[in-house]
Amino acid sequence: MPGLAGSKMSTTVIAHLRDRQHAHLAELCEFLAIPSISMDPAHTADMAMAARWLADRLRGAGMSHTEIIPTSGHPIVFSEWLDAGPTAPTLLIYGHYDVQPADPVDAWHTPPFAPTASNGNLYARGASDDKGQVMAAVAALEAWLHATGRLPINVRLIVEGEEETSSVGLRHFVHSEADRLRCDAVLMVDSSMLTPQHPLILYGTRGNCYLEITVRGPASDLHSGTFGGAVENPFNVLVRLLASLQDGETRRVKVPGFYDRVRAMDDAERRLMASLPLSDAVLLAMTGAPALAGEAGFSAIERATIRPTLDIHGISGGFTGPGKKTVIPAQATAKLSMRLVPYQDPQDIAQRVTDFLHHQAPPTVSLNVRVLSASRPVLVDYRAAAVQAASQAFEQAFGAPAACMIGGGTLPIAADFQEALGAPLVITGFGLPDDNMHAPNEKLNLSCFFRGSEMIAHYLPMLAAFS
Amino acid sequence: MPGLAGSKMSTTVIAHLRDRQHAHLAELCEFLAIPSISMDPAHTADMAMAARWLADRLRGAGMSHTEIIPTSGHPIVFSEWLDAGPTAPTLLIYGHYDVQPADPVDAWHTPPFAPTASNGNLYARGASDDKGQVMAAVAALEAWLHATGRLPINVRLIVEGEEETSSVGLRHFVHSEADRLRCDAVLMVDSSMLTPQHPLILYGTRGNCYLEITVRGPASDLHSGTFGGAVENPFNVLVRLLASLQDGETRRVKVPGFYDRVRAMDDAERRLMASLPLSDAVLLAMTGAPALAGEAGFSAIERATIRPTLDIHGISGGFTGPGKKTVIPAQATAKLSMRLVPYQDPQDIAQRVTDFLHHQAPPTVSLNVRVLSASRPVLVDYRAAAVQAASQAFEQAFGAPAACMIGGGTLPIAADFQEALGAPLVITGFGLPDDNMHAPNEKLNLSCFFRGSEMIAHYLPMLAAFS
Repeated sequence: MPGLAGSKMSTTVIAHLRDRQHAHLAELCEFLAIPSISMDPAHTADMAMAARWLADRLRGAGMSHTEIIPTSGHPIVFSEWLDAGPTAPTLLIYGHYDVQPADPVDAWHTPPFAPTASNGNLYARGASDDKGQVMAAVAALEAWLHATGRLPINVRLIVEGEEETSSVGLRHFVHSEADRLRCDAVLMVDSSMLTPQHPLILYGTRGNCYLEITVRGPASDLHSGTFGGAVENPFNVLVRLLASLQDGETRRVKVPGFYDRVRAMDDAERRLMASLPLSDAVLLAMTGAPALAGEAGFSAIERATIRPTLDIHGISGGFTGPGKKTVIPAQATAKLSMRLVPYQDPQDIAQRVTDFLHHQAPPTVSLNVRVLSASRPVLVDYRAAAVQAASQAFEQAFGAPAACMIGGGTLPIAADFQEALGAPLVITGFGLPDDNMHAPNEKLNLSCFFRGSEMIAHYLPMLAAFS
Repeated sequence: MPGLAGSKMSTTVIAHLRDRQHAHLAELCEFLAIPSISMDPAHTADMAMAARWLADRLRGAGMSHTEIIPTSGHPIVFSEWLDAGPTAPTLLIYGHYDVQPADPVDAWHTPPFAPTASNGNLYARGASDDKGQVMAAVAALEAWLHATGRLPINVRLIVEGEEETSSVGLRHFVHSEADRLRCDAVLMVDSSMLTPQHPLILYGTRGNCYLEITVRGPASDLHSGTFGGAVENPFNVLVRLLASLQDGETRRVKVPGFYDRVRAMDDAERRLMASLPLSDAVLLAMTGAPALAGEAGFSAIERATIRPTLDIHGISGGFTGPGKKTVIPAQATAKLSMRLVPYQDPQDIAQRVTDFLHHQAPPTVSLNVRVLSASRPVLVDYRAAAVQAASQAFEQAFGAPAACMIGGGTLPIAADFQEALGAPLVITGFGLPDDNMHAPNEKLNLSCFFRGSEMIAHYLPMLAAFS
């Protein structure tokens, strides 16, 4: 394996995939029509329906064992085919069937849960993140099983329903049932390519530390005409606290010790990153901002991937309606998060920020800092066989090997896989940067979807050859 | 006048008022049941209905001429009785029939537009601010007219429907039709007493400069995993800009020139203020805050009345729902206002703040500062006859003369009255500090309501005597 016989088999499998593109698109539309919004309790039944739909689909694809595993939240879909024998490698494929809310719904040009194909794209919530990517994997497994009666290696597939809500159930499962997930590599299909012609593998991701900071002042909202000037306004204090976290000139986080554990890139990595088609001009065009901004001494793509950040996401309290109201609010709350890089520890960072804020808060208010989530950054050796085989599989399917970089986003479950399974992670996917993941008008490029299936079909025998 | 005959007449009038307390309460309830929320376009018809209701009521009271005057916004109710003759003084009484929105409605113990009497209070939106105070004046006029067939002086009454939305229509009217409002004193009944036993007259009010500050960054909302660190987050910039406006230690506004025109109190005033039953401990108890805070070198009541302030009222943009979302918003907006004291000019202050912010804003964002309103502070000579007569009328009705101070709130129309009419203002009222004006469970103390009517009934002949 693969040798000539493997090569011939791959050809048969790819032909099978191409014959069935129309069917794969129709099936994906069915899957996307289920509004599996994990963070909205009103969609709990839709979550269960999406899990059942996927499990049925996997049984139809010919997987030997498929089950729906309940969790404290939404269920996990687990499926496996282990008949390649004990000496063959085992690949664990990961994805998720839950989606982000569709808000603001008015901003969609087509209904978010009525998938619509147009100009080579499929528009729907979840098209790219992550149902389309999951279905690309399902199609590849089915093609091997239907066209050849078997898979070239052992495969486990785990598709969770809580990726958009912190993967609580799966994190528990990964640690408590690691044996059922034993594998030689993990293929995570939940990210994007650089362009339709440039595949991408992430050899790490940033972590995240998400905080909610509340400043409480008067017992109830007060009128600024009556009390303004004599009582602390929680907003006035909150903006001072928030402003103290970051230097306005250097954009460095000012919390003591924040950068202590930040890993420097080595020269090889820095060259790898400089070779990416992601110049500052390219990133600026993608943002539409007046100018880029960030930590001095780093390129934009470095700032967005291998450097930590601090972003305020929202501030609530008081009055934000049309017109004006002169309220001194009883409390003001900010949501902020920090993207963390290897080897920063999110719990340590949360504690440092909390201490830093409490140290400054005046006795005229009470301050509460809540950790809403803490996800560790991940680092993989990009020279690992599983990564290199994936890059070659991309070359077969897309005509170009994959670029390698550390991703700026966070895959909370990745750190758990790494810790519990000890296998190399191949973090990749078939989305595109302009897919509007988490935004209105999410789409999937259909060419990436079909080629993504082929990439996985190629990857299975290649991983066997590398092992 | 007043002499003995006047005194006897007053007694008759007061008896008339007391006989009819039950009817006055019932009428006020009718008025309060009309949800005349000026800032909500959904209540435009209610505004017109409230104006008609009041005009009918004034006709019933025996005023010689009453009309509803249309404006660019909600109508003004104007009424007069000028048969006291050309040598008698003319009093202009001012109030407003519009009310604040009732949000948050869930926090009300009784429905905001179903007036409910309980324990000597009447609960309803607008009970204290300002329908109850207006109706106290109407009852006093009616009592004189019904009990004696005349008023001791000429009276004009103007009740606007836009006090809660900047008085645009009335401001225009005051300046363009000043002749119709010609008077020797203006009695503004739209404020509070210190306690049910301590009447209060304001010999000035703070002005207000209300700004909306918007920072725009990327063309649309971005994901902080993809772009965090490489693009300016409008929130991060906004909190720095807001924090720069005020010193965290001294609480002084740091905008250059902000304090240039601030008037110092003279010794007599400072003594007047120190004599008020408004110690720091009293104010702290009223706020329920952990501690008071404010500009160094001033008592709490001084900070709340004769010193300027800066309060942030709300910040919008990004994500503030439950849970967490890692968005870099395209824009972030803050609402803030500054209470201004004599002789600060709100336009000048708006320009200084705007310049100060633009000077600091980085080129990585665009900044927009909008002036939502600008109201001048007001200062009256508290030794004026119209003020002293009012204090004596309070003594007749409440058993104590009125304390005099500058109010911390803003009555935008007061500066226009002063400028267009050149008459002394008597800014007073029958509300209480705990009436929850602008908040849920607004109430009116019924004893203050009934005695308020008597105070106005006493004031009319006293003003004649002083003139």
